[in-house]
Amino acid sequence: MELLKRKIQEEGKIISEGILKVDSFLNHQIDPLLMQAMGQEFARRFHGDKITKVLTLEASGIAIAIMTALSLQVPLIFAKKRRPSTMNDEAFLGHVHSFTKDEDIDIMVSANFLSPEDRVLIIDDFLATGEAARGMIEIVRQSGASIIGVGIVIEKAFQEGGKSLREEDIRVESLARIAKLEQGRVFFL
Amino acid sequence: MELLKRKIQEEGKIISEGILKVDSFLNHQIDPLLMQAMGQEFARRFHGDKITKVLTLEASGIAIAIMTALSLQVPLIFAKKRRPSTMNDEAFLGHVHSFTKDEDIDIMVSANFLSPEDRVLIIDDFLATGEAARGMIEIVRQSGASIIGVGIVIEKAFQEGGKSLREEDIRVESLARIAKLEQGRVFFL
Repeated sequence: MELLKRKIQEEGKIISEGILKVDSFLNHQIDPLLMQAMGQEFARRFHGDKITKVLTLEASGIAIAIMTALSLQVPLIFAKKRRPSTMNDEAFLGHVHSFTKDEDIDIMVSANFLSPEDRVLIIDDFLATGEAARGMIEIVRQSGASIIGVGIVIEKAFQEGGKSLREEDIRVESLARIAKLEQGRVFFL
Repeated sequence: MELLKRKIQEEGKIISEGILKVDSFLNHQIDPLLMQAMGQEFARRFHGDKITKVLTLEASGIAIAIMTALSLQVPLIFAKKRRPSTMNDEAFLGHVHSFTKDEDIDIMVSANFLSPEDRVLIIDDFLATGEAARGMIEIVRQSGASIIGVGIVIEKAFQEGGKSLREEDIRVESLARIAKLEQGRVFFL
């Protein structure tokens, strides 16, 4: 998606060792018009796939995921990173290892909101090792719902997440795929 | 806002001691069309106030806040609950005590995204004791920006947060104000 690639070139900052910082428009300060355009793009790519629910992981996936859900006119569910005190229902659980924070977390979705009839589109801001996506896939599988695809804003194609998901025949649609980050520059695939 | 009140009456669940659960449309599963309508309503109420930034707190404020930012056509910033590993910039800090989780947390916004020229609208899903709003107000004041108002989806008017903010001449706009939760019913103000 050209609009996104231009924004990454203009505002992205390469920090170190494969880390791209896009906190001026994607995951701290957020550009709502860009989110809307990207949500419309995901809806276009999954048009006709009869998506019934969009699923993301708190917190930085929510803005793009709600715009996608709005365009598809289906509910959004965001998986939570720990059990809130008001959540006593049965829940589907996934396991995620965060390499950036070096910690293991459980993520969960109340069993009230996913059922075997659902056709789920997973949305996230980044795909690198694929840990977050795998945690959400685990949740969808527990519920018996179908995984229709994974929509990603920025895929770090130099890490293994996208490749390994596609090898399992999971459809992954990324709006920008980064081949490498080198000498302070972003190279797209 | 009648649409929201009807949704609360139909889908809200009273758990105990003043706790209203609205996780089927507001803070776990999210209704994007309702979020869009509420975002437009906040934009209408603050139309003419020259808002330059919307500020919320991760995670459950993000969906309504991005829709408000979209309607106002200004950036959204979400305050983070701890310092992410890629955030080495100077930051504005706020302090929040969560009564539901019984913990103290620091919230932060990078100093890159708020400046004295900004006119900030704070948006959140709930207002009860006012702790989250006060944490965000602390951040805005550190930055030197102006606090134009606070927009809340559901205000628990039987708790002190809204009253104490209004006593300090902070403009608080709540889309639904709950007077009491009693005998399994929701009474609006």
